[in-house]
Amino acid sequence: MKLGEGVEAAIHCAAMLAGVDGAATLPGAAMAEAFGLSPSYLLKHLNALTASGILESVPGPSGGYRLARPAERITLLDIVLAVEGREPAFRCAEIRQRGPAKLNASVYAKPCGINVAMLKAERAYRAALADAWLSDIVAEYTADADSRSVAANCAFVERHRRPQKSSSTKQA
Amino acid sequence: MKLGEGVEAAIHCAAMLAGVDGAATLPGAAMAEAFGLSPSYLLKHLNALTASGILESVPGPSGGYRLARPAERITLLDIVLAVEGREPAFRCAEIRQRGPAKLNASVYAKPCGINVAMLKAERAYRAALADAWLSDIVAEYTADADSRSVAANCAFVERHRRPQKSSSTKQA
Repeated sequence: MKLGEGVEAAIHCAAMLAGVDGAATLPGAAMAEAFGLSPSYLLKHLNALTASGILESVPGPSGGYRLARPAERITLLDIVLAVEGREPAFRCAEIRQRGPAKLNASVYAKPCGINVAMLKAERAYRAALADAWLSDIVAEYTADADSRSVAANCAFVERHRRPQKSSSTKQA
Repeated sequence: MKLGEGVEAAIHCAAMLAGVDGAATLPGAAMAEAFGLSPSYLLKHLNALTASGILESVPGPSGGYRLARPAERITLLDIVLAVEGREPAFRCAEIRQRGPAKLNASVYAKPCGINVAMLKAERAYRAALADAWLSDIVAEYTADADSRSVAANCAFVERHRRPQKSSSTKQA
Protein backbone atom coordinates (compact mmCIF):
# COMPACT_ATOMS: atom_id res chain seq x y z
CA MET A 1 0.00 0.00 0.00
CA LYS A 2 1.34 3.36 -0.90
CA LEU A 3 0.11 6.91 -0.75
CA GLY A 4 1.35 9.26 -3.42
CA GLU A 5 4.14 11.64 -2.46
CA GLY A 6 1.77 14.52 -3.15
CA VAL A 7 0.00 13.87 0.15
CA GLU A 8 3.00 15.05 2.18
CA ALA A 9 3.35 18.16 0.02
CA ALA A 10 -0.36 18.94 0.20
CA ILE A 11 -0.55 18.65 3.98
CA HIS A 12 2.57 20.78 4.47
CA CYS A 13 1.19 23.48 2.16
CA ALA A 14 -2.18 23.49 3.91
CA ALA A 15 -0.41 23.76 7.28
CA MET A 16 1.69 26.66 5.97
CA LEU A 17 -1.41 28.41 4.61
CA ALA A 18 -3.04 28.07 8.03
CA GLY A 19 -0.44 30.57 9.19
CA VAL A 20 -1.46 33.20 6.63
CA ASP A 21 -3.87 35.68 8.15
CA GLY A 22 -7.00 37.18 6.65
CA ALA A 23 -7.47 37.28 2.90
CA ALA A 24 -3.73 37.16 2.12
CA THR A 25 -2.35 34.42 -0.10
CA LEU A 26 0.93 32.64 -0.71
CA PRO A 27 2.13 31.97 -4.24
CA GLY A 28 2.51 28.34 -5.22
CA ALA A 29 6.10 29.05 -6.26
CA ALA A 30 6.97 30.17 -2.72
CA MET A 31 5.57 26.97 -1.22
CA ALA A 32 7.43 24.91 -3.81
CA GLU A 33 10.62 26.73 -2.80
CA ALA A 34 9.96 26.17 0.90
CA PHE A 35 9.70 22.41 0.46
CA GLY A 36 12.26 21.96 -2.31
CA LEU A 37 9.64 20.83 -4.83
CA SER A 38 9.20 21.65 -8.49
CA PRO A 39 6.48 24.31 -8.91
CA SER A 40 4.74 22.35 -11.68
CA TYR A 41 4.65 19.21 -9.53
CA LEU A 42 3.21 21.13 -6.61
CA LEU A 43 0.71 22.97 -8.82
CA LYS A 44 -1.04 19.70 -9.62
CA HIS A 45 -1.65 19.03 -5.96
CA LEU A 46 -2.62 22.62 -5.14
CA ASN A 47 -5.16 22.40 -7.96
CA ALA A 48 -6.57 19.20 -6.46
CA LEU A 49 -6.92 20.92 -3.07
CA THR A 50 -8.62 23.87 -4.76
CA ALA A 51 -10.99 21.63 -6.72
CA SER A 52 -11.98 19.93 -3.46
CA GLY A 53 -12.78 23.23 -1.76
CA ILE A 54 -9.91 23.08 0.72
CA LEU A 55 -7.96 25.94 -0.87
CA GLU A 56 -9.00 29.04 -2.80
CA SER A 57 -6.81 30.37 -5.53
CA VAL A 58 -6.64 34.06 -6.34
CA PRO A 59 -5.61 34.47 -9.99
CA GLY A 60 -3.18 36.95 -11.41
CA PRO A 61 0.46 37.90 -10.89
CA SER A 62 -0.17 39.02 -7.31
CA GLY A 63 -2.47 36.11 -6.53
CA GLY A 64 -1.83 32.83 -4.79
CA TYR A 65 -3.48 30.33 -2.49
CA ARG A 66 -5.24 30.51 0.85
CA LEU A 67 -7.37 28.15 2.91
CA ALA A 68 -11.00 28.14 1.76
CA ARG A 69 -12.19 27.49 5.31
CA PRO A 70 -10.58 27.63 8.75
CA ALA A 71 -8.01 24.98 9.68
CA GLU A 72 -10.43 23.96 12.43
CA ARG A 73 -12.67 22.58 9.70
CA ILE A 74 -10.06 20.77 7.62
CA THR A 75 -8.98 17.21 8.40
CA LEU A 76 -6.17 15.08 7.04
CA LEU A 77 -8.87 12.91 5.49
CA ASP A 78 -10.11 15.90 3.46
CA ILE A 79 -6.59 16.44 2.14
CA VAL A 80 -5.78 12.78 1.48
CA LEU A 81 -9.01 12.24 -0.46
CA ALA A 82 -8.50 15.47 -2.42
CA VAL A 83 -5.04 14.37 -3.56
CA GLU A 84 -5.54 10.60 -3.86
CA GLY A 85 -9.18 10.38 -4.89
CA ARG A 86 -12.10 8.90 -3.01
CA GLU A 87 -11.79 5.28 -4.14
CA PRO A 88 -10.96 2.76 -1.43
CA ALA A 89 -7.41 1.39 -1.32
CA PHE A 90 -8.69 -2.14 -1.85
CA ARG A 91 -10.48 -2.32 -5.18
CA CYS A 92 -12.37 -5.57 -5.40
CA ALA A 93 -12.21 -6.87 -8.96
CA GLU A 94 -14.70 -9.65 -8.14
CA ILE A 95 -12.20 -12.32 -9.12
CA ARG A 96 -14.48 -14.75 -7.28
CA GLN A 97 -16.74 -14.46 -10.34
CA ARG A 98 -14.05 -15.34 -12.84
CA GLY A 99 -12.75 -18.66 -14.00
CA PRO A 100 -14.51 -21.66 -15.45
CA ALA A 101 -16.61 -22.30 -12.34
CA LYS A 102 -18.43 -18.98 -12.67
CA LEU A 103 -22.06 -19.39 -11.72
CA ASN A 104 -25.24 -17.44 -12.32
CA ALA A 105 -24.98 -13.78 -11.23
CA SER A 106 -27.57 -14.32 -8.49
CA VAL A 107 -25.02 -16.50 -6.66
CA TYR A 108 -22.88 -13.40 -6.05
CA ALA A 109 -25.62 -11.11 -4.77
CA LYS A 110 -24.06 -10.98 -1.31
CA PRO A 111 -20.83 -8.98 -1.22
CA CYS A 112 -17.57 -10.90 -1.00
CA GLY A 113 -16.50 -11.27 2.64
CA ILE A 114 -12.92 -10.40 1.73
CA ASN A 115 -14.04 -7.06 0.34
CA VAL A 116 -16.21 -6.47 3.40
CA ALA A 117 -13.24 -7.07 5.74
CA MET A 118 -10.91 -4.87 3.70
CA LEU A 119 -13.42 -2.02 3.60
CA LYS A 120 -13.92 -2.28 7.35
CA ALA A 121 -10.19 -1.69 7.84
CA GLU A 122 -10.33 1.23 5.43
CA ARG A 123 -13.13 2.79 7.47
CA ALA A 124 -10.88 2.58 10.55
CA TYR A 125 -8.10 4.31 8.60
CA ARG A 126 -10.37 7.05 7.37
CA ALA A 127 -11.91 7.55 10.80
CA ALA A 128 -8.44 8.16 12.25
CA LEU A 129 -7.62 10.65 9.47
CA ALA A 130 -11.00 12.36 9.94
CA ASP A 131 -10.05 12.87 13.59
CA ALA A 132 -6.75 14.58 12.69
CA TRP A 133 -7.51 18.28 12.34
CA LEU A 134 -5.21 20.64 10.50
CA SER A 135 -5.65 23.19 13.30
CA ASP A 136 -4.38 20.67 15.87
CA ILE A 137 -1.36 19.79 13.77
CA VAL A 138 -0.48 23.48 13.41
CA ALA A 139 -1.08 24.14 17.13
CA GLU A 140 1.09 21.20 18.15
CA TYR A 141 3.80 22.31 15.76
CA THR A 142 3.77 25.85 17.14
CA ALA A 143 3.83 24.58 20.72
CA ASP A 144 6.25 21.68 20.44
CA ALA A 145 8.56 22.13 17.47
CA ASP A 146 12.00 23.67 17.78
CA SER A 147 11.49 27.42 18.15
CA ARG A 148 14.06 28.11 15.44
CA SER A 149 11.95 26.17 12.96
CA VAL A 150 8.78 27.97 13.99
CA ALA A 151 10.51 31.36 13.70
CA ALA A 152 11.96 30.51 10.29
CA ASN A 153 8.60 29.38 8.96
CA CYS A 154 6.83 32.47 10.30
CA ALA A 155 9.47 34.68 8.69
CA PHE A 156 9.08 32.81 5.41
CA VAL A 157 5.30 33.29 5.42
CA GLU A 158 5.69 36.96 6.35
CA ARG A 159 8.14 37.48 3.50
CA HIS A 160 5.97 35.81 0.87
CA ARG A 161 2.40 36.60 1.91
CA ARG A 162 0.45 38.73 -0.50
CA PRO A 163 -2.32 40.89 0.92
CA GLN A 164 -5.53 40.72 -1.11
CA LYS A 165 -8.35 43.19 -1.39
CA SER A 166 -11.04 40.53 -1.42
CA SER A 167 -12.25 39.62 2.04
CA SER A 168 -11.34 36.23 3.35
CA THR A 169 -13.88 33.44 3.21
CA LYS A 170 -12.16 31.80 6.16
CA GLN A 171 -14.89 32.66 8.64
CA ALA A 172 -15.56 29.87 11.10
CA MET B 1 -4.11 5.37 -1.84
CA LYS B 2 -4.10 2.07 -3.61
CA LEU B 3 -3.37 -1.51 -2.73
CA GLY B 4 -1.95 -3.68 -5.47
CA GLU B 5 -4.36 -6.03 -7.20
CA GLY B 6 -2.29 -8.93 -5.91
CA VAL B 7 -3.84 -8.51 -2.47
CA GLU B 8 -7.24 -9.72 -3.66
CA ALA B 9 -5.67 -12.70 -5.43
CA ALA B 10 -3.52 -13.58 -2.42
CA ILE B 11 -6.40 -13.51 0.05
CA HIS B 12 -8.65 -15.58 -2.22
CA CYS B 13 -5.90 -18.18 -2.70
CA ALA B 14 -5.22 -18.38 1.04
CA ALA B 15 -8.95 -18.79 1.69
CA MET B 16 -9.14 -21.55 -0.92
CA LEU B 17 -6.11 -23.30 0.59
CA ALA B 18 -7.82 -23.18 3.99
CA GLY B 19 -10.27 -25.67 2.50
CA VAL B 20 -7.56 -28.18 1.61
CA ASP B 21 -7.22 -30.79 4.32
CA GLY B 22 -4.10 -32.33 5.77
CA ALA B 23 -0.85 -32.22 3.85
CA ALA B 24 -2.52 -31.96 0.45
CA THR B 25 -1.67 -29.07 -1.86
CA LEU B 26 -3.24 -27.16 -4.72
CA PRO B 27 -1.21 -26.28 -7.79
CA GLY B 28 -0.78 -22.58 -8.52
CA ALA B 29 -2.14 -23.14 -12.03
CA ALA B 30 -5.43 -24.42 -10.60
CA MET B 31 -5.84 -21.35 -8.41
CA ALA B 32 -4.98 -19.11 -11.35
CA GLU B 33 -7.68 -20.88 -13.34
CA ALA B 34 -10.22 -20.54 -10.53
CA PHE B 35 -9.81 -16.78 -10.39
CA GLY B 36 -9.21 -16.11 -14.07
CA LEU B 37 -5.63 -14.92 -13.49
CA SER B 38 -2.45 -15.55 -15.43
CA PRO B 39 -0.38 -18.25 -13.69
CA SER B 40 2.82 -16.20 -13.90
CA TYR B 41 1.08 -13.19 -12.34
CA LEU B 42 -0.27 -15.30 -9.52
CA LEU B 43 3.05 -17.08 -9.00
CA LYS B 44 4.67 -13.82 -7.94
CA HIS B 45 2.14 -13.37 -5.17
CA LEU B 46 2.18 -17.03 -4.11
CA ASN B 47 5.95 -16.71 -3.82
CA ALA B 48 5.55 -13.65 -1.61
CA LEU B 49 3.15 -15.56 0.64
CA THR B 50 5.59 -18.46 0.79
CA ALA B 51 8.54 -16.19 1.59
CA SER B 52 6.53 -14.70 4.45
CA GLY B 53 5.77 -18.10 5.93
CA ILE B 54 2.04 -17.99 5.20
CA LEU B 55 2.17 -20.72 2.54
CA GLU B 56 4.39 -23.72 2.02
CA SER B 57 5.24 -24.85 -1.45
CA VAL B 58 5.88 -28.47 -2.29
CA PRO B 59 8.14 -28.67 -5.34
CA GLY B 60 7.85 -31.02 -8.28
CA PRO B 61 5.22 -31.87 -10.88
CA SER B 62 2.80 -33.22 -8.27
CA GLY B 63 3.51 -30.41 -5.81
CA GLY B 64 1.65 -27.22 -5.06
CA TYR B 65 0.81 -24.88 -2.21
CA ARG B 66 -0.75 -25.31 1.21
CA LEU B 67 -1.12 -23.10 4.27
CA ALA B 68 2.00 -23.15 6.43
CA ARG B 69 -0.08 -22.70 9.58
CA PRO B 70 -3.77 -22.98 10.40
CA ALA B 71 -6.15 -20.32 9.08
CA GLU B 72 -6.87 -19.53 12.75
CA ARG B 73 -3.37 -18.07 12.91
CA ILE B 74 -3.38 -16.06 9.68
CA THR B 75 -4.75 -12.52 9.49
CA LEU B 76 -5.46 -10.26 6.55
CA LEU B 77 -2.63 -8.08 7.86
CA ASP B 78 -0.19 -10.98 7.43
CA ILE B 79 -1.29 -11.36 3.82
CA VAL B 80 -1.36 -7.64 2.97
CA LEU B 81 2.13 -7.09 4.38
CA ALA B 82 3.44 -10.19 2.58
CA VAL B 83 2.19 -8.93 -0.78
CA GLU B 84 2.64 -5.17 -0.36
CA GLY B 85 5.68 -5.00 1.89
CA ARG B 86 5.96 -3.68 5.42
CA GLU B 87 6.56 -0.02 4.67
CA PRO B 88 3.84 2.37 5.81
CA ALA B 89 1.54 3.81 3.15
CA PHE B 90 2.66 7.34 4.01
CA ARG B 91 6.38 7.66 3.41
CA CYS B 92 7.63 10.88 4.93
CA ALA B 93 10.30 12.38 2.70
CA GLU B 94 11.11 15.04 5.30
CA ILE B 95 10.28 17.84 2.88
CA ARG B 96 10.17 20.11 5.94
CA GLN B 97 13.96 19.93 5.84
CA ARG B 98 14.28 21.02 2.24
CA GLY B 99 14.30 24.42 0.66
CA PRO B 100 16.47 27.45 1.33
CA ALA B 101 15.28 27.89 4.93
CA LYS B 102 16.73 24.52 5.99
CA LEU B 103 18.19 24.79 9.46
CA ASN B 104 20.65 22.78 11.49
CA ALA B 105 19.74 19.07 11.75
CA SER B 106 19.16 19.41 15.50
CA VAL B 107 16.08 21.53 14.73
CA TYR B 108 14.38 18.48 13.25
CA ALA B 109 15.13 16.04 16.06
CA LYS B 110 11.42 15.76 16.94
CA PRO B 111 9.42 13.82 14.33
CA CYS B 112 7.21 15.82 12.01
CA GLY B 113 3.67 16.03 13.43
CA ILE B 114 2.22 15.29 9.99
CA ASN B 115 4.08 11.99 9.84
CA VAL B 116 3.01 11.18 13.40
CA ALA B 117 -0.68 11.72 12.52
CA MET B 118 -0.44 9.71 9.31
CA LEU B 119 1.26 6.80 11.08
CA LYS B 120 -1.39 6.85 13.79
CA ALA B 121 -4.05 6.32 11.11
CA GLU B 122 -1.99 3.52 9.60
CA ARG B 123 -1.84 1.80 12.98
CA ALA B 124 -5.65 1.90 13.09
CA TYR B 125 -5.78 0.35 9.62
CA ARG B 126 -3.34 -2.38 10.51
CA ALA B 127 -5.09 -3.11 13.80
CA ALA B 128 -8.34 -3.70 11.90
CA LEU B 129 -6.59 -6.00 9.43
CA ALA B 130 -4.86 -7.83 12.29
CA ASP B 131 -8.30 -8.49 13.73
CA ALA B 132 -9.57 -10.08 10.50
CA TRP B 133 -8.74 -13.78 10.68
CA LEU B 134 -8.63 -15.96 7.61
CA SER B 135 -10.51 -18.67 9.53
CA ASP B 136 -13.37 -16.26 10.25
CA ILE B 137 -13.59 -15.20 6.62
CA VAL B 138 -13.76 -18.82 5.51
CA ALA B 139 -16.31 -19.71 8.23
CA GLU B 140 -18.54 -16.77 7.29
CA TYR B 141 -18.27 -17.66 3.63
CA THR B 142 -19.26 -21.26 4.31
CA ALA B 143 -22.16 -20.21 6.51
CA ASP B 144 -23.48 -17.22 4.59
CA ALA B 145 -22.55 -17.46 0.92
CA ASP B 146 -24.85 -18.91 -1.68
CA SER B 147 -24.76 -22.69 -1.26
CA ARG B 148 -24.18 -23.16 -5.00
CA SER B 149 -20.97 -21.14 -4.73
CA VAL B 150 -19.79 -23.10 -1.69
CA ALA B 151 -20.54 -26.40 -3.43
CA ALA B 152 -18.76 -25.34 -6.62
CA ASN B 153 -15.68 -24.23 -4.70
CA CYS B 154 -15.57 -27.43 -2.66
CA ALA B 155 -15.86 -29.48 -5.84
CA PHE B 156 -13.07 -27.42 -7.44
CA VAL B 157 -10.76 -28.02 -4.48
CA GLU B 158 -11.63 -31.71 -4.40
CA ARG B 159 -10.87 -32.02 -8.11
CA HIS B 160 -7.51 -30.27 -7.93
CA ARG B 161 -6.13 -31.23 -4.51
CA ARG B 162 -2.97 -33.28 -4.56
CA PRO B 163 -2.34 -35.57 -1.62
CA GLN B 164 1.23 -35.39 -0.29
CA LYS B 165 3.21 -37.90 1.66
CA SER B 166 4.79 -35.31 3.93
CA SER B 167 2.74 -34.61 7.02
CA SER B 168 1.06 -31.26 7.25
CA THR B 169 2.61 -28.55 9.38
CA LYS B 170 -0.85 -27.07 9.85
CA GLN B 171 -1.18 -28.19 13.46
CA ALA B 172 -2.77 -25.56 15.64
